Parts: sequence; C-alpha cells; structure tokens
Amino acid sequence: MKRMKNRGQLIVISGPSGCGKGSVIEKLLESTDLNLWLSLSTTSRQIRDNDIPGKTYNFVTKEEFEKKIEEDYFLEYAEYSGNYYGTPKSTIEEKLENGIDVILEIEIQGALKIKEIRKDALFIFILPPSMRELKRRLEGRNTETKEKILKRFKTAYREINEVTKYNYVVINDEMEEASKKINSIIEAEKCRVDRIEETYLNSLEEEIHEILLEDNETI
Amino acid sequence: MKRMKNRGQLIVISGPSGCGKGSVIEKLLESTDLNLWLSLSTTSRQIRDNDIPGKTYNFVTKEEFEKKIEEDYFLEYAEYSGNYYGTPKSTIEEKLENGIDVILEIEIQGALKIKEIRKDALFIFILPPSMRELKRRLEGRNTETKEKILKRFKTAYREINEVTKYNYVVINDEMEEASKKINSIIEAEKCRVDRIEETYLNSLEEEIHEILLEDNETI
Repeated sequence: MKRMKNRGQLIVISGPSGCGKGSVIEKLLESTDLNLWLSLSTTSRQIRDNDIPGKTYNFVTKEEFEKKIEEDYFLEYAEYSGNYYGTPKSTIEEKLENGIDVILEIEIQGALKIKEIRKDALFIFILPPSMRELKRRLEGRNTETKEKILKRFKTAYREINEVTKYNYVVINDEMEEASKKINSIIEAEKCRVDRIEETYLNSLEEEIHEILLEDNETI
Repeated sequence: MKRMKNRGQLIVISGPSGCGKGSVIEKLLESTDLNLWLSLSTTSRQIRDNDIPGKTYNFVTKEEFEKKIEEDYFLEYAEYSGNYYGTPKSTIEEKLENGIDVILEIEIQGALKIKEIRKDALFIFILPPSMRELKRRLEGRNTETKEKILKRFKTAYREINEVTKYNYVVINDEMEEASKKINSIIEAEKCRVDRIEETYLNSLEEEIHEILLEDNETI
C-alpha cells in the first residue's frame, strides 16, 4: 500500500519588527528534521550591519523594485516604514509541488495579502516576551534612530491587533524553545485529519476486505 | 507582566485494537517535556499476559463495573467485544484545573461519547501502517482466538470510518516517530491563536502605551 506524496505546506511567519523572527527561523532551519525551504524576500530597504545580501534579503534599489512590480514578479509586496518588501513568485510553487514546505518570513501587511490569495497557507505570529524587551532589542540595533523606534512601536501596536487573523502564536521568550514550537506546529499540521489522503483510508478498507475474504468472511 | 496559568488540555487518544496506542502513549510519557497525566481506564475484560493491573487498566468484575455505573462513577463508559470500558470522572477535572494535560486512552465508541460532552477536548486517532500489520500484531497476542481477531477486524472497518470526527491522525509506522508526532500535536495546540489569553495581548498593548508616554508620545 502506497501513500501519495503530499504537497508541501506554505508557512507564513511574521511578527512585529524586533520580535526576533529571523533568528528563530534560522534556528528552526538548522535543527529541523522537516523538509523546509526559506523563501528569500526582496527589499529596497538599506542594508544593516547584520545583513548578508542573498541570505537575509535580496537587496535592490527602489527603482529596481518598482520595475519588478510591473513585471508581476511578486506573489505579494508591501511598503513598510518607507521601504518595499516583496515575495518572489518563482520557485515557491515548484518547491510546494515537490513536497517541500516553504517558509515566508514577511511583515504583517504582506502576510494578510497572502491570506487573501492562499487560503491553504499556515499563519504563525511571533510575539516578543514583553514590549520592554522588544524596545531593548530595537535599541540594540545601531541603525535605528529614536524616531524610527517610536514609529516601529506605533506600528507594533496596530499589528498586535491582527494576531487573531493568524492560526498560531509563538511567544519568543527563548529562541530555541520558540523554534521548537514552530517545528511542532508544522509537524502537527501534517497530522490534521483534513490533510489525510482519502485514498489512504480507502486503501485500509480495501485491505480489510481482502483479509476477510482470505478467511471466507465478509463485512 | 504575568501570563495567566492555562487550564490543562483534555486529550483523547484512540485507534483500532492492535494499532499500538498503548506503547505509543507509554513512549510519549517517557520522553515528553510536557506536563501530561494518563487517566487510567477501568475495565471488566480478562487480564492478558502483558497487562499490569493498576497500570494498563483497573480491572474489576462485570458486577463491580455495573455498580460503578449506578454510582455515576464514569465520565463515559462503553461495552466493547462483550466487555465494559470506562473513564473515571474523579481526578481528571482536578488535574485540568492545575494546568496538567490529561490523556484518555479509549475506544472509539467511548471517544465519541466524550466528544458530545467535552467540546474542548483534542481527539487523536492512531492508525496502523497497514491492516496486514494490524493482523500480524493481533495474531501475536496469544490470548486472541481466530474468531476474536475476525471480530476485531470487522470492528476496525467500522471504526476507520469515524476518523473524520477526530482532529488529528497519527500513523503508527514507527513507535518513536508516532509518539513524537503526538507530542508535537499537543505542543502545537497550546499555540493556537484561540488559546492565547486575551489578557496577555491586552497587557502587551498597555505596555506600548506606557513606553510611548515615557517619551511623551501617544498612539
């Protein structure tokens, strides 16, 4: 009896700026047994000290980004704190068809756009343990001015109200714990009864019939 | 900022006779970091070679069981292959109130009764990798006559049709893997957005207000 190969799962991970989603996802990719692929976003924002172009983001200029929008290059894109962020369409669909789970690390605005077009996606919201801790993390980034931090805080306030549109919430108290929880969420989703192939259940029933017939029995 | 202590989760695990749910649960309890408690069922069935009274089941006579039914001792009970199986009410509620997750290992009939009275419970169905394998396992039990095995198979056929009433399905290909999946399911459930305390989200918002006020800012 064979089980059909399942399609990959599209997983959207977002959270307020400074909640640590980047590090949590990095830890997840390092430690998971699951077949995960992180889709790289494109952005027009400035490169920060801890950025690695082609790893944290694909960096382009504002003009290049706008050209890509016209070329229908993005699954979704959004403007956020004056910069563009977008999710390239290419390869995502191919990975999913090959049974690979695709992770999108995107801002809340972008995530909600994905929700409109991809009902089957899984939405995970990462929250900081407290807002004081979030502030501390944002201040630790040397690139952020006081005004930018305040702006991010006001944005975070609006964003936390969107949490109910997500499926799961993970509080990033401790990075390793948080990445383990995301791993569990992805693994558990694969066991949801609505994802079990009907063909698999039918094949179990057929087998029962066969076994009973061998003993001249029927249901 | 404090998060309120969450109530424990009631987790119902069932599956056809021979699917290996007992061993999977044993493995789960051995290896989990979660705070789990296995509720012991009471039965009037015969003690098998691998049974440990007070560990696999509480064994009572048919007459004793019927007396307990009259005394309203059970959350649910069912007759299955001519024997009674029941879930004692006592201690379950106490454990849940103390934030401990309670596992009930019960037959499908009993599980569906629980579903009617406990909408908040989590239902996990364990399936064997194949029905041939299930047959092999049942035949491996020396206590089972050929007739009993055939009867169990016919029951399994009916039971597999009830799988869609459950929340999750775990295929018991490999015991350790299956127990890990159940652990993930329980962990993931705790992250579901509808289980996040509203008070926690409110406290995050209050904190943002406080922080902004310190800088003479408002939302």
